[in-house]
Formats: sequence, structure tokens, C-alpha cells
Amino acid sequence: MYAHRTPPTLRWILTLLLCLPLLAQAAEVLPSWNDGPSRQAIVKFVEAVSTEGGKDYVKPAERIAVFDNDGTLWSEQPLYFQVLFALAEVKRMAPQHPEWKEQMPFKAVLENDQKALEAAGMRGLLEIVMATHTNMSTEAFTDNARRWLASATHPRSHKPYTEMVYQPMLELLGYLREHGFKTYIVSGGEVAFMRAFAEEVYGIPPEQVIGTTFATRFQDDEGALSIQRLPKLTHNDDGAGKPESIDAIIGRRPILAFGNSDGDLQMLQWTTAGEGLRFAGLVHHTDGEREWAYDRQSKVGRLDKALDEATEKGWTVVDMAKEWKRIYPFEQQAGNN
Amino acid sequence: MYAHRTPPTLRWILTLLLCLPLLAQAAEVLPSWNDGPSRQAIVKFVEAVSTEGGKDYVKPAERIAVFDNDGTLWSEQPLYFQVLFALAEVKRMAPQHPEWKEQMPFKAVLENDQKALEAAGMRGLLEIVMATHTNMSTEAFTDNARRWLASATHPRSHKPYTEMVYQPMLELLGYLREHGFKTYIVSGGEVAFMRAFAEEVYGIPPEQVIGTTFATRFQDDEGALSIQRLPKLTHNDDGAGKPESIDAIIGRRPILAFGNSDGDLQMLQWTTAGEGLRFAGLVHHTDGEREWAYDRQSKVGRLDKALDEATEKGWTVVDMAKEWKRIYPFEQQAGNN
Repeated sequence: MYAHRTPPTLRWILTLLLCLPLLAQAAEVLPSWNDGPSRQAIVKFVEAVSTEGGKDYVKPAERIAVFDNDGTLWSEQPLYFQVLFALAEVKRMAPQHPEWKEQMPFKAVLENDQKALEAAGMRGLLEIVMATHTNMSTEAFTDNARRWLASATHPRSHKPYTEMVYQPMLELLGYLREHGFKTYIVSGGEVAFMRAFAEEVYGIPPEQVIGTTFATRFQDDEGALSIQRLPKLTHNDDGAGKPESIDAIIGRRPILAFGNSDGDLQMLQWTTAGEGLRFAGLVHHTDGEREWAYDRQSKVGRLDKALDEATEKGWTVVDMAKEWKRIYPFEQQAGNN
Repeated sequence: MYAHRTPPTLRWILTLLLCLPLLAQAAEVLPSWNDGPSRQAIVKFVEAVSTEGGKDYVKPAERIAVFDNDGTLWSEQPLYFQVLFALAEVKRMAPQHPEWKEQMPFKAVLENDQKALEAAGMRGLLEIVMATHTNMSTEAFTDNARRWLASATHPRSHKPYTEMVYQPMLELLGYLREHGFKTYIVSGGEVAFMRAFAEEVYGIPPEQVIGTTFATRFQDDEGALSIQRLPKLTHNDDGAGKPESIDAIIGRRPILAFGNSDGDLQMLQWTTAGEGLRFAGLVHHTDGEREWAYDRQSKVGRLDKALDEATEKGWTVVDMAKEWKRIYPFEQQAGNN
């Protein structure tokens, strides 16, 4: 018997060689996710729906995946980045609007008067968004958004906002697309603002970005054509507005949805209420060190009812602190797994 | 010399053999189109934008093609098929609405009183459309549309409406997709009605169908979720409404557009006003024998201003009678080329 035994060192090498392909494969899939419950649930779901002949197989055309943006694909603290853009635009546009010096809420923005700005509330904020997002063509607005995105930096990380995206979610988007999914953004953000960077940053083309919308008007100025943005909200893509826009624009029910706040609850409900295997995920902001820690009491991205329903229904809740090796692409690859 | 000449019969055979691959290729592309100006313009455009390294090359992501539906992809006479559906639905739904017996415009429909129906005008028609298209879920409406499409037949051809589609346009849709185009419907038709058959008939998935829309409401009846359609128009996808919906939903400008009426003019203008090579096409209904012949004076699908502008700008105007070998898939393949 002894003579037939492979020497221990050689055994180790053989074992390693046999395992290498498996290790390589494992390393390719969602590398910034620890091998925790969320990663396992995702891989299990994706394999189930994309394995031909399997009982949960879904044909590629129906593999629709929808993602919230703020707090799900990129950070949303200390304020939604689009709001920071609107505030910066007020300052940039101020020379063309001398009246703003004495006119609230613009006066508060120009004087950095946070208290006055808060007092202006949602109504004041909407006024700021209207003034900086409408009464111009879609093309002109897109140029404005891109200019800001190319130069502005986040107050804490000092990185461009387009780098404040979640590396694990970028990997998830790619992993889904590799498995035949069509990935969509369905977000409360204004649609043209998100389209200004979604293709480059997330690989999501403009026609797969759904968001809050303003009325528009096709304008013909003696042959110079444009789409003008009007200061009138036509769709608020939050809460019940999400399944409504999914039905209106996609026209079929997603099989996977990911969000991070109560504003995503109806989208998750609508997705999981369809027949067959479905996936609902929530990014839970638990990492006060590398990102931010907030949920039930937060003004931005409150996660309360949806967290209860996720627990009750067994949806996947991603514990950012525990399950993500890396938060942002600019972080050095961590080795805590 | 004589000894070296190939015998005439053999020469013919050799020539034929050499030409076979060319013939086969030519036969594959748009076989129901005569080799006229329209087919040539289409092939020239598609080859120019899809030839890598060429000066007119357009990357696949930007190869967006938009098509009107009524009169462009399927017939629209004697009335828009969706209107025929709405009229049929009034009769089907009448038992649940005893009040309609005495109530215009429903009374006119139930009594086949065409004169009274015409007198009710656009307002009456809209009332009929609302009554048959809203106050139900998208799912229920889709079922109704599919039931009608599966059983109703056209008054003249006695064929199902989904067979009254243009064979040459089906080939064009396929040809574009083979060349990396994403094909969209952008039509005045109601979006859910078109989605009920667009994927099966045109190979165009629901998310690439854009049309006229009603307001909707996400409804939660003790856990039973639905999208309810409300009797309120939110977008009329005709005329200027077409570039507006293209901007809102696709978020980039098409490089090819096809229509057949003045309601498509702004979509063609918007498409061709973009930079680089663009294609604008109009289906001209010139075939009173195999289809219908109408343009400037027609109530349905009037083509007047757009015909002038097409002539002026050199857009492609398809002369249906001269350029299409076949109109409908159910016709026997014609041999007139």
C-alpha cells in the first residue's frame, strides 16, 4: 500500500492544478463581493434563469433587470448628486439672472445659506431644479450636465461623482448582461441627467434609462430643430411611479429588481409578483467608514418599510459593510476574503 | 486559336456558375422589392453606415431605426385597425353597459349607424377609444386586443389584421436588424395595442414600441397588484409628438425613419437634421389594386406636406405599385422582376 501512495507534496500540486480552473472561474464572477448570502443568491438566481432546459429557465428577451440609481448604483450622500448639480448650476447661471440675488430660494444658494435653503423646503428645491433643468434644449442640458460631471468633485472623497459608483454593482450589471439580461435604470433621477453618464459609466444606453421627466416641445426655429424642456413635471419616477413607468416604457415585467430605499418598494413588489422565479435586492447602507450608514431615519434614501418587507418576504438585503470587499472602483482591491 | 475556344454551351455554364453566388446574395436582400430607386437607396445607406472604416460608419449602438405603424408597416384602410378594434369592443362589451343602447356615440356603433357615428366626430371616437381601452389593467387590455386580433378579419381581404402587414417592410426590418440596427415603432397607435402583436408579427419587442399613451395607476388590492389604465391621454404620438417621444424614451436621434403620412413629417425632419448620413423614407400608397391608392386628399393617412418636403429634400418615396413585388405575406410570390 505504502509504495502506491503519491508523495504529499505532489498530491498538493495535483490538487491545486485540479482546482485552478474552478478558482479562476470563481474569481471572474462578482470579484468584489464576498462569498456571502447576497452573492450566493444572485449567482443561484442567474444560473437558474439562464440554464436552458432548467425548470426556472427564462428566455433572453424576458430577462429584464431594473436598477434604481441613487444609493443603488452610486452614492447619494450628503445629498442626491443631481441636487448638488442643480445648486452648482444656480451659481454658474447667476450672472445671467441678476434677479436671483434678491430672490429666494436662489438667494440662499448664492449666499450658501443652508438654513434658508432648508426653510425653502421641497418647493424651493423644485424651483431650483426647474430653473437649472428646463427652458433649454435636451442637447444644451446634456452639455451642462456633462460639463459639471467632468469637473465637479465630491465634498468628501474629492473624486468625480462618476467615480462614486459601486464597484460590486458594476460587476453585477456586467454579470447580468453576460447572461443575456437587458439592464435598465428606473430611478427618481431626471432622465436626461442620468443619460449624460449612464452609458459611459454603467454601460447602460440612453434607451434603457427611465427616470423622472419634464414636458418637452419639438421646436422649429426656421429650420433649426430642437427638443425644448418645459418647466412642468410629467412623471415622478418614485414609489408607485416606478412600476407605472416600467409598464409604460418597457411593457413587460422585470424578473430582477434592485433598489435601496422605500421609493423602490413598489418596483420590487411588482417584479416579484410576476410568475416564475424572481429576484428582489436591496443595498443596505451599513458602512459608515467606507461609505455611509443610514436606513430608517435618513432624509435621503430612507429604508424602512422596504426593509421590513424584504425581511418578511426573504428578499436579498446586501449588507454593504460585510458583503462588499470594495465600495468604489478607485479603492485599492481589498484582500479580506 | 479555334482549338482553344471553349465550346459555347460550356461557356454559358461557367458564367452561370461564376454568377451563382452573386445571384444568391442579391436574392437574399429585400427579395420583395424591385430593384428600383428605393431599394437601391436603402441598400446604399445601410452598407455605408455599417461598413467599418468607411466615412459614413455609425457604431451599432447608434443605429436606431424608427417606423410609423399604420400605413407604414401594415394597412390602415378603410379605417385604422385600432379603431375597428374599438368599434368591435363596444359591441362585445355592450351587455355590461345597457346604458349604451341610448347613449351616443355608443348607440351609433351598436346600430351600425355610420352617419351618426361620423357626426360624433373625433370627440365621439375618443370616447369610444376611452371606453374600450381604459378602466382596466394593462394585462386585461392586452388579453382583449389579442383575442380580437386572433379572430377578427379584414372586411376586404377576409384575412386576420396581423396578416395585412407589408412583406417588403418585414424584410426591411429584418435587413436592418441583420446590420446591427435596433428597430423601433413610433406610432400614433396606442402603445399596449401595438405591443399585443408587434413582437410576434414584426419581431419588435415591447420595449421598442412607442405610441400614444394613457395615464396609469399602480394598484394594490390587498396584495393583488396591477397597472390600471385611466381614461386620460398623456401623450399623443403624432406629428411633433413623435420627436418628443423619441427624445423622452430613446434619448438619442434615429439615423433612419420611415413613415407614410403628414403625421410622420416631424419625425423625418428630426431624424435627417442630425449629423452624418441619415435616411428618411415614405411609403406612398399608389396601388389601388393590390392595396389602396391615396395621399393628399385622404382622411386616413393624409400625405401632403410630407410628400412635398420629401420631393424637395430628396427623401426616399416608395412607389408601392412600382417598387413592391408583393404587398402582403399571404400573396403568392410575384415574378415581375
